[in-house]
Amino acid sequence: MSMTARLTFSRNLRKVRTGQGISQERLADLCDLHRTYVSSVERGERNITVDNMERLAVALGVDIRVLLNPDDAS
Amino acid sequence: MSMTARLTFSRNLRKVRTGQGISQERLADLCDLHRTYVSSVERGERNITVDNMERLAVALGVDIRVLLNPDDAS
Repeated sequence: MSMTARLTFSRNLRKVRTGQGISQERLADLCDLHRTYVSSVERGERNITVDNMERLAVALGVDIRVLLNPDDAS
Repeated sequence: MSMTARLTFSRNLRKVRTGQGISQERLADLCDLHRTYVSSVERGERNITVDNMERLAVALGVDIRVLLNPDDAS
């Protein structure tokens, strides 16, 4: 395992969010999270919980497993 | 979404663990977690972090996404 789940999630989160043309602030608003929190998650700094992973996935309209797919995390 | 990611994870964790004939105590030892922690995760009481989800998945030899597959969580 060359990449941890945390980093896979963080990279996919950023990739999906930017692919949808959504700002960190907009995504944060959709999830009732703080922009700085979303930013730190995307930098892999936060050991995010499953509940918050799900909130972000739901806001982006993707399955939580999509955000944990290591093949997508480029 | 009829089942949350947290509950999906908890049910799949128990299902995979018992399917491998591993006790909660043995799994906890493999992950350097406490048995009572694993027990509470399997009851869906803990808002588990991505790092601990990965530790449990690695110990069971499955991809973290397998533990988040709602179709398997029966």
